[in-house]
Amino acid sequence: MSRNLPVNADRIAWDIDALAGTTEPGHPWTRRAFSPLFLEGRAYIEARMREAGLGTRIDAGGNLIGKRAGIRPGLGTIMVGGRFDGIAGVVAALEVARALSDRNIQLDHDLEIVDFLAEEVSIFGVSCIGSRGMTGQLPEAWLSRVTDGRDLAKGILDVGGDPSILMSQRRPDIAGFLELHIEQGPVLEAESKDIGIVTAIAGITRIEITVEGRADHAGTTPMDRRADALVAASQLVLDIRNAAAERAKMPGHFAATVGEFRIEPNAANVVPSKAVLLIDGRAENRRDMEEFCVWLNAHVIKLAATHGVSIKPPLRVSDNLPTPGDAGLLETLERACDTVGARHRRMASGAGHDTAWIAKMAPAAMIFVPCKEGRSHSADEWAENDDIALGAAVLFAAVCDMDKSLQTISQEKPNGTNTR
Amino acid sequence: MSRNLPVNADRIAWDIDALAGTTEPGHPWTRRAFSPLFLEGRAYIEARMREAGLGTRIDAGGNLIGKRAGIRPGLGTIMVGGRFDGIAGVVAALEVARALSDRNIQLDHDLEIVDFLAEEVSIFGVSCIGSRGMTGQLPEAWLSRVTDGRDLAKGILDVGGDPSILMSQRRPDIAGFLELHIEQGPVLEAESKDIGIVTAIAGITRIEITVEGRADHAGTTPMDRRADALVAASQLVLDIRNAAAERAKMPGHFAATVGEFRIEPNAANVVPSKAVLLIDGRAENRRDMEEFCVWLNAHVIKLAATHGVSIKPPLRVSDNLPTPGDAGLLETLERACDTVGARHRRMASGAGHDTAWIAKMAPAAMIFVPCKEGRSHSADEWAENDDIALGAAVLFAAVCDMDKSLQTISQEKPNGTNTR
Repeated sequence: MSRNLPVNADRIAWDIDALAGTTEPGHPWTRRAFSPLFLEGRAYIEARMREAGLGTRIDAGGNLIGKRAGIRPGLGTIMVGGRFDGIAGVVAALEVARALSDRNIQLDHDLEIVDFLAEEVSIFGVSCIGSRGMTGQLPEAWLSRVTDGRDLAKGILDVGGDPSILMSQRRPDIAGFLELHIEQGPVLEAESKDIGIVTAIAGITRIEITVEGRADHAGTTPMDRRADALVAASQLVLDIRNAAAERAKMPGHFAATVGEFRIEPNAANVVPSKAVLLIDGRAENRRDMEEFCVWLNAHVIKLAATHGVSIKPPLRVSDNLPTPGDAGLLETLERACDTVGARHRRMASGAGHDTAWIAKMAPAAMIFVPCKEGRSHSADEWAENDDIALGAAVLFAAVCDMDKSLQTISQEKPNGTNTR
Repeated sequence: MSRNLPVNADRIAWDIDALAGTTEPGHPWTRRAFSPLFLEGRAYIEARMREAGLGTRIDAGGNLIGKRAGIRPGLGTIMVGGRFDGIAGVVAALEVARALSDRNIQLDHDLEIVDFLAEEVSIFGVSCIGSRGMTGQLPEAWLSRVTDGRDLAKGILDVGGDPSILMSQRRPDIAGFLELHIEQGPVLEAESKDIGIVTAIAGITRIEITVEGRADHAGTTPMDRRADALVAASQLVLDIRNAAAERAKMPGHFAATVGEFRIEPNAANVVPSKAVLLIDGRAENRRDMEEFCVWLNAHVIKLAATHGVSIKPPLRVSDNLPTPGDAGLLETLERACDTVGARHRRMASGAGHDTAWIAKMAPAAMIFVPCKEGRSHSADEWAENDDIALGAAVLFAAVCDMDKSLQTISQEKPNGTNTR
């Protein structure tokens, strides 16, 4: 790429390679939060933050923060965050700070670069620990979840956080928040776009369904006298897939996946007596999810009758609403794309992100960069360095824009709080 | 039941209750072969055999045998076998010996009552150990299968067998073999029949199929760009069920069941990349199984193309031919039913039995007695004592008949060998 970008693509490549090397032997894509490798990766990021002239700290939520003070401190903080989830987000944020220093640009606002703790589902079985923790949204009960003889409170303490004051954390100073992430889907690549401007982070609804049939001898029980839980559950998997595919053709991102599936007794010569499946549903528009659940509740009743099995009412084991991006920041990001010459489109995020938690407390938005064949959550995940660099350039332009445009807003709310 | 039977129904009930009490606490249907409970149950049977005047021994295959000598030893052995699989078989066989003693009947043939070792899939992962072992059909490699720090050879030794001479075991003296078993299916109960005369023991073919799709992010990957291994495998489960149900409507027992099923990575937010399923197929007629396999091989190719997944050619992990019952013994059993006034029908066995192994070496046949709602391989398995007693009476009449009718055959083969 020969663009004249405000950021340094080589520096980004160097950091990404360094962090990609700090992974489990034999699993070069794995660096679990709270592990020694995680602390090693963090030490690398912290050293780079200091080289860039940032003052570093770990906040109560266990997030690593590099701060560049603004010249008008009362204006609040522009925050750019990310984490090791694909590495790209935090490295791009760091590069924004370095690019500002390269050009001797002084922002009016404070700028904070954040490496969030444990966005992915961690060893403690919960996700977005850092972004929830930073903003007082971490359920207190989670602190006593124990894995490998250590509870989450101790885990946060061990990475330098302070679980004792976690419940009272607020960040009313955040004037605007941005995050860069790989798309984790195939749309940008397929459409040859450089940047996705995320209109909303889809809500995630997880639904558990248990199908109960009858264990019978697989050799002797006639085919027409069975209550085979696997057969009924298989039909349900297909019906869910077809219902989701139909809904996905309409406007607004929608997906539903049976990702977990197990049967009992799971023995060669016994007709399966039980199947348990977990649906992961994602919807940009809440109404789509509500309609899907209405359909599902009615459908399992019909399915149970057809197959002579019993199906308990579907159980919503978790349910998060969609999070729209801040309208003003979406416009800022579009302007930033135009400034650096990036081809962009608006799109929803099917995945959950730290941004969703920050967005409950402050204006927030995020951008996507393309990734290879849309692959993610697999060993084949890959994003081109030039694409990440272009995304970092968009962030740089957006931060500069925000530093000016957010002043109007901040002047309207001189006490610095944000009640959105 | 007020029939005037040659057997004692109360004695059968007593034995069955006693053995039903020798089971795992909390699992009153479980008594795993090779366990201390198994040895306790065996000690009970052996004591009853001795009370009935039988000479007891454990053969090299670990089978408990009670022998009643005939008055013309050169004629060979009539064997009546069973095992704890539902208890009924061995208790009914024992009752035949007691009924002969009650009536002071001396048979010309030797009579042996056999409690076979480990007909069900044992802790060593293999089945019909005793009946294979008795007849030199146990694969030698099985002897080194290890479970809980003990190999099968030691397991057989521990129950009193002799693994060192197992490979050379032959029983050319068996003139005829009979086994009583619960039907493990619903047909007799539904048709109000007392006895099923088993025309054939279905062949068992186990087929493993692996469906490989692509792991993708469940939230972000559009519904129409997935290679979901679970969706494809679900369609396959339904197609197998429907193909088996169609074939089961035609003459000859046929069943196919997906009893084992698992997916990878089995994570809520990842599109399943792999599904592995194990089909248990049963066919009275070999041609049905061959045709089913031809259909299956062709079908998975089409299915893989439709769903954008890859499916390796189905793998037959085990494959046993159907075993027909001895034509002469089937007639003997029909006469015996008529003698005691039992309503009978011919039918195939969908389940595997020790009889299938003995039948490779000697004339063999088996009878079924009804069981409640056809339930088996579940905690609800149940057979009425009166039904078992009527079956024992049929065995008694058949043994008396065989003692006469088999003499002609034996006289044709004075060396006592049987080359069937």
